[in-house]
Amino acid sequence: MTQYKAPLRDMQFVLHELLDVEKQYAAIPAYAETNRELVDSIIEAGAQFSENELSPINRSGDEEGCQFDQGVVTTPTGFKQAYSKFVELGFGALSADPEYGGQGLPPSVGIAMSEMNGTANWSWSMYPGLSHGAVNTIEQHGTEEQKKTYLTQLISGRWTGTMCLTESHAGSDLGIIRSRAEPQADGSFKISGTKIFISAGEHDMAENIVHIVLARLPDAPKGTKGISLFIVPKFLPTADGGVGARNGVSCGSIEHKMGIKASATCVINFDQATGFLIGPPNRGLNCMFTFMNTARIGTALQGVCAAEGSFQGALSYARERLAMRSLSGPKAPEKEADPIIVHPAVRQLLLTQKAFAEGGRAMVYWLSTQTDIITGTTDADQRKAADDLMSFLTPIAKAFLTEVGYEAANHGVQVYGGHGFIREWGMEQIVRDTRIALLYEGTTQIQALDLLGRKVLQSQGAMLRQFTKIVHKFCQANEAKPGMADFVKELARLNKEWGEVTTEIGMRAMQNADEVGAAAVDYLMYAGYVTMGFLWAWMAQVAQDKIAAGSEEADFYKAKVQTAQFYFKRILPRTQAHVAAMRGGLEVLMQMDADHMAF
Amino acid sequence: MTQYKAPLRDMQFVLHELLDVEKQYAAIPAYAETNRELVDSIIEAGAQFSENELSPINRSGDEEGCQFDQGVVTTPTGFKQAYSKFVELGFGALSADPEYGGQGLPPSVGIAMSEMNGTANWSWSMYPGLSHGAVNTIEQHGTEEQKKTYLTQLISGRWTGTMCLTESHAGSDLGIIRSRAEPQADGSFKISGTKIFISAGEHDMAENIVHIVLARLPDAPKGTKGISLFIVPKFLPTADGGVGARNGVSCGSIEHKMGIKASATCVINFDQATGFLIGPPNRGLNCMFTFMNTARIGTALQGVCAAEGSFQGALSYARERLAMRSLSGPKAPEKEADPIIVHPAVRQLLLTQKAFAEGGRAMVYWLSTQTDIITGTTDADQRKAADDLMSFLTPIAKAFLTEVGYEAANHGVQVYGGHGFIREWGMEQIVRDTRIALLYEGTTQIQALDLLGRKVLQSQGAMLRQFTKIVHKFCQANEAKPGMADFVKELARLNKEWGEVTTEIGMRAMQNADEVGAAAVDYLMYAGYVTMGFLWAWMAQVAQDKIAAGSEEADFYKAKVQTAQFYFKRILPRTQAHVAAMRGGLEVLMQMDADHMAF
Repeated sequence: MTQYKAPLRDMQFVLHELLDVEKQYAAIPAYAETNRELVDSIIEAGAQFSENELSPINRSGDEEGCQFDQGVVTTPTGFKQAYSKFVELGFGALSADPEYGGQGLPPSVGIAMSEMNGTANWSWSMYPGLSHGAVNTIEQHGTEEQKKTYLTQLISGRWTGTMCLTESHAGSDLGIIRSRAEPQADGSFKISGTKIFISAGEHDMAENIVHIVLARLPDAPKGTKGISLFIVPKFLPTADGGVGARNGVSCGSIEHKMGIKASATCVINFDQATGFLIGPPNRGLNCMFTFMNTARIGTALQGVCAAEGSFQGALSYARERLAMRSLSGPKAPEKEADPIIVHPAVRQLLLTQKAFAEGGRAMVYWLSTQTDIITGTTDADQRKAADDLMSFLTPIAKAFLTEVGYEAANHGVQVYGGHGFIREWGMEQIVRDTRIALLYEGTTQIQALDLLGRKVLQSQGAMLRQFTKIVHKFCQANEAKPGMADFVKELARLNKEWGEVTTEIGMRAMQNADEVGAAAVDYLMYAGYVTMGFLWAWMAQVAQDKIAAGSEEADFYKAKVQTAQFYFKRILPRTQAHVAAMRGGLEVLMQMDADHMAF
Repeated sequence: MTQYKAPLRDMQFVLHELLDVEKQYAAIPAYAETNRELVDSIIEAGAQFSENELSPINRSGDEEGCQFDQGVVTTPTGFKQAYSKFVELGFGALSADPEYGGQGLPPSVGIAMSEMNGTANWSWSMYPGLSHGAVNTIEQHGTEEQKKTYLTQLISGRWTGTMCLTESHAGSDLGIIRSRAEPQADGSFKISGTKIFISAGEHDMAENIVHIVLARLPDAPKGTKGISLFIVPKFLPTADGGVGARNGVSCGSIEHKMGIKASATCVINFDQATGFLIGPPNRGLNCMFTFMNTARIGTALQGVCAAEGSFQGALSYARERLAMRSLSGPKAPEKEADPIIVHPAVRQLLLTQKAFAEGGRAMVYWLSTQTDIITGTTDADQRKAADDLMSFLTPIAKAFLTEVGYEAANHGVQVYGGHGFIREWGMEQIVRDTRIALLYEGTTQIQALDLLGRKVLQSQGAMLRQFTKIVHKFCQANEAKPGMADFVKELARLNKEWGEVTTEIGMRAMQNADEVGAAAVDYLMYAGYVTMGFLWAWMAQVAQDKIAAGSEEADFYKAKVQTAQFYFKRILPRTQAHVAAMRGGLEVLMQMDADHMAF
């Protein structure tokens, strides 16, 4: 199997040349001191850690899996040690609040770290990943006391966090959860219920686990407006912040899954466990959205990791593996056959992976610079704009990048031929590990409804227009540049088409709200391809400017432009199918009686 | 996990109402006595066997896998017993030559059996499946003595067969295989070499295994024209046809794979093993094509099985699982939420699965009726026409149906949400089991080159025109029928476009042969969607005629028409993306230096 190598040059391109983060940091009071040197040194340290500590235990972790024995979960060999090292290096605390031990760096720096950890070993990266979400939730909604008690420990990495939402009958629909919280005289609550699919719910890496739990108060209204949020630690904290008595929280079993086998997916039983309300009563779902947005960007990143990891594996194989002669004549006549990278059909697979990996990286990093603004700015207007853009792009990034990341992972298998199906080579593991990304943190279908229904149509198109304005500005600024005309022309066409299609669906939805659901998934994929098209055009422009300025790295920049050209010519046409499918409408989905779907 | 239920009504629709096999059988001397009653009774017996014997050991087989210990392979619990029962019922001998113990039934009857076996338990079905290919090869290319010795045993099922092509360095490119065959004084050969990925290469189900092996004679020319075909039995046959001395054939190990874990995928070592030339020297690859065509149709079927199996699972889940309210108002107000089948985005997944399962069934069965003609007719012209159509459609069926079958399997997981990722539910197993179908028996890329390069362009479009004429005739015959206009209009447009696109690519390929590889995969997928579109239009026409004739099964036929409408409105538009991608051309694939693909 392939050893992971952090794509440092590309990460730097996105952070420094595309997004110019140093300049943006300088304009945000909280991050003004973060300079390029610091960012690069952290990323390089993260690369070493990911390559040397995480990548080597990725496949063994998959083979070994997590073990469950009477409530105790043991992670695979090496996982605990790697986690200790991660904590020691302070990598978990990069973007956390300095008041509680964090380093106060911009979230975009943390995203780069997460990408490298995740590509090297997605299962492992979920343990610190879940803590990250718990930290964000307590930072935003916790009381001062809760912050002191839990944040410090979570940020240090001594304790880890979870997100306890799902119950066996309730996943996409959290309004019908049944876990209960009974108020106690001392202001605490007794939490009872069973949660499933709890990642990092139980393990042997940290001395305590802080569960963030959704449950209903006795007098709560029905549905989503009657859910509250609680902190429920595995061990109750002592007065001095240490680990005290065991709480009524236990792991009932772990799931046997298709992938991410080294990530413990737990059934967690709360049996009159002591919990502490976080945020206002019955507003738990709103508070949880913070956590969920973090998790959604983190999951979008999984798509990028899948594309990058499978691309690395496939590229090295395609350069070495010999099969057949090029149709246009032998390319390696001294060998018994040509390396398969000479074949256009193989290049199509590789370039698709590359376009999704680098385009996805640009998308997620761009999003994370919006998070930088949201968390760091003191300017309310600037924050509002970033927040709106973020709201609009989050479902797109989450669903689109996991869908295309999964496609890329499958291309990795395909490049290897039959060998891709064999576990030893590591390609099929990426497919298995990535499949969950299209499901957890809201399925593709749920994200699609969120985008089209809640974001675009409920804002009467305002959120879309905010985005298409950005694209429009870009087009205006670049239409006259040599080498940009083709990109700009197609992008401008799509930008206009996007608005038209949205209006069409909006009109139909006024007649029948189900039209939203009928169009949603195609709409989301369309949105994803166009958004990534914008990012590729933008990257091509930056690269062309560098070439024009006589950069010594012309090969790197040329490859960027060529990948953009590939994307526009061979990938972006997929938008046509999605537009046509949307226009195919609702009736053909609904006219069949559910009882007549099979005879 | 879901219990498999054979889709008997739909199978009967395709065989009897769409293809009218009874009428076709009657016109083929060899099959004139096969009537509907006989076909249906065999299918019903096969359904019972598949549902009761194979489906229950599908998931346990996956969990248990095959075990390897010092050259001995043990199949999972129940596999051997099920195989004995299968042999006892005579199911393996349905379409085989009566002279050697077969039942002499048309291959299309065998395909229906294979579909049910395969959907219920793909891994299990591979053992008899491989025998089927060995039988065909020996039937066509063996000497009378070879037939007497091997065919009888293979047809009875007492012995099983394999197909030993791949070596670790040579899969898609068989021209570079290294296994050697040295002629012996007695007319036999000593075979040496190592073959990998040998399905059913070693197991505990049968008393002997007959390997069909590709190897090179000492004086053989280089490349594909220097490969010969040999029969190499695990145990040498005795004079009376029994099992004699152990031959120099051994299993070195079994592969650890993503899926089809209950199918033994073996490394087979030939160490001066005694082999017998089959067919002319150096013409092995040509002889092997018989085997490979059988195997390709068998693999196309795996796509249908994946779609059918995952659809059955997803449909039953979608009818039961409650989540959220329909956007157009509650549909099950008495329940705490609506069953998810009310949501358009869920229906989109289900109908896509259904369209691929039923459309794929129609495609494979239609193909198998061409095999009926090829194997049974005495009319040379009729055979030639069937053979040409078969040659043209085989790569389409193999690659397209496995690609969309894999998509359907993934939709099965998606309908289950997070539960789809859990092994217990069986949905993820279908994904893992099906992934190999896009690789073995020639990857999608290889099939695409075969279709566009070898079939369409080398015949200067003749093979395509043969097909588009069939479609054209259908359009002419049905354009005036009420309810058929939309189907016919779109189909006629695509039929014309297909020819135009082919001409374009053909012109470009005259300048640069790599244009074929650049367009091939999109071309194949385009071909697949159009071919399936034709079948859906055809099925809609048959169903509408039944409704018009006042059938009592109007619900069944209405659902057929509605599925066709769904396919045309929501799936067929994908052709637009493929046409545009093909027109995106070669340059964007080739311009990047292989060394610049990553920095």
